[in-house]
Amino acid sequence: MSILVVGSVAYDTVETPFGKAERVLGGSASFFSVAASFFAPVNLVAVVGDDFGDEQLLAFRGRPIDLRGLERTAGATFHWQGRYSWDLNSRETIRTDLNVFEFFKPRIPESYRSSDVVFLGNIDPVLQREVLAQVEKPRLVACDTMNFWIDGSRDELRETLRQVHVLLVNDAEARELSGEWNLVKAARAIRSLGPRTLVVKKGEHGVVMFGDDGSFAAPAYPLEEVFDPTGAGDTFAGGFVGYLASAREQGDAVLRRAVVMGSTLASFCVEAFGLDRLLTLSRADIDRRYRRFQQLTHFESV
Amino acid sequence: MSILVVGSVAYDTVETPFGKAERVLGGSASFFSVAASFFAPVNLVAVVGDDFGDEQLLAFRGRPIDLRGLERTAGATFHWQGRYSWDLNSRETIRTDLNVFEFFKPRIPESYRSSDVVFLGNIDPVLQREVLAQVEKPRLVACDTMNFWIDGSRDELRETLRQVHVLLVNDAEARELSGEWNLVKAARAIRSLGPRTLVVKKGEHGVVMFGDDGSFAAPAYPLEEVFDPTGAGDTFAGGFVGYLASAREQGDAVLRRAVVMGSTLASFCVEAFGLDRLLTLSRADIDRRYRRFQQLTHFESV
Repeated sequence: MSILVVGSVAYDTVETPFGKAERVLGGSASFFSVAASFFAPVNLVAVVGDDFGDEQLLAFRGRPIDLRGLERTAGATFHWQGRYSWDLNSRETIRTDLNVFEFFKPRIPESYRSSDVVFLGNIDPVLQREVLAQVEKPRLVACDTMNFWIDGSRDELRETLRQVHVLLVNDAEARELSGEWNLVKAARAIRSLGPRTLVVKKGEHGVVMFGDDGSFAAPAYPLEEVFDPTGAGDTFAGGFVGYLASAREQGDAVLRRAVVMGSTLASFCVEAFGLDRLLTLSRADIDRRYRRFQQLTHFESV
Repeated sequence: MSILVVGSVAYDTVETPFGKAERVLGGSASFFSVAASFFAPVNLVAVVGDDFGDEQLLAFRGRPIDLRGLERTAGATFHWQGRYSWDLNSRETIRTDLNVFEFFKPRIPESYRSSDVVFLGNIDPVLQREVLAQVEKPRLVACDTMNFWIDGSRDELRETLRQVHVLLVNDAEARELSGEWNLVKAARAIRSLGPRTLVVKKGEHGVVMFGDDGSFAAPAYPLEEVFDPTGAGDTFAGGFVGYLASAREQGDAVLRRAVVMGSTLASFCVEAFGLDRLLTLSRADIDRRYRRFQQLTHFESV
């Protein structure tokens, strides 16, 4: 089943305690697409400037990532620059140059409109709805958002959420969206807005999913070296949605495996700068680490 | 198998956003003993003042908790007073009156000396070693500590750790003890000091255990109402050590089940003030929630 993703393709300049990467390929749709492409064909919709060349596209080549929806327009590509704290647990945005992304109006190519699964990256909820209006009936709509929209476009976001099956947010966003500190209460409030499944990403503390069949919790994979957390959440979403798109059945058991698959991909993402680790990854690497997640979490009945 | 526990029995005055409890029974050894007593006989060693009466002892009565090691001496019982933040994620100590606990010299009754399992609560590491000197060869020595000893008695603590099989600490303590921020590195450093197994408690984010057979991660049980976190760590330890003492085999699989049993007991502890919830708990309640932990964490192979 094919996946339509709408989001950002950007240049990232990232400083971590371990080094600096200048203007490397980033953006939510980039991380998502590479991660999801291990499982299903991806139809990418994003915008870049005329400073974005074939070299950057190499990351997507040789993968089932359709680039007909990657619009190139006059101007500079979205550039984000940030710096992580010594413990990687907080980051400071040094600059955000939206550039051509500021006027992004997602246009869905004709050939994408029958995509089975849609992932609405973290863009204006009005644009997210415009994307949904351009596609035929997708089997699954998953969605990301952020504090900027929760604060500034609450009503529009609520309207979008009515059309969403799975919402993926971090714990701070879940709390802000619901007005509830307790995540169980937050989940109930958010699920009443539309999404039947809520996936709450907690970074190094793992993921909790709330759905019709109860809740599921998975730890993050304990890593000895975390190099660059940039893109981990988008990579999680790519692994999660990608796995769902590849699965023959639906339901709680598939969603649980998808959470672990998302966590697996995210655990690789943070091992190197930007997309570097994802680009050298094999399906065998992924399956091996998925099995390690099973070893990490398995316990028997008493 | 019987468990010897040495720690504090105290009065706690606790304020949470949901109310206040004045001078209720608390202390690490109290929470530990009640939790552990669901699984194995407990031999309690602690000290209280002459303000500690039969009413307080009721919590221990009717359970397999031997009180011959509960010394009563002239003076006032240890009293701790604290206040939790609105989100229960931080707490402020308003007063700590050590009282008779300041001069606590654990004396192990003759009848306790053959205890199979020893839990060294969070006391001066010199006293922890004096306890070990008074017991015969226990099958298992588990130990708690805190920043006060890690900072102030580092060498003494290291000496104690050489005799410890399982160390239970929270994530901040693991980082401080090892000087490593990354928990995988912290675990390696701490395990090189003596304990073959390190259990890192992360509160609402669950538990990670590091041992000879790799690592194990368990989430905290998602609760809709967290009322009072006081004693959750000691209750975890009681469930964990209690389960280990009750198990016929040893090894990684048993340690994993013990982590989940500790998490199960801790999830009940926080549902009411002080020991209140633990005192109304049945073994059937415990086993039911253990099974819910299995549902919460189970996922299949891909």
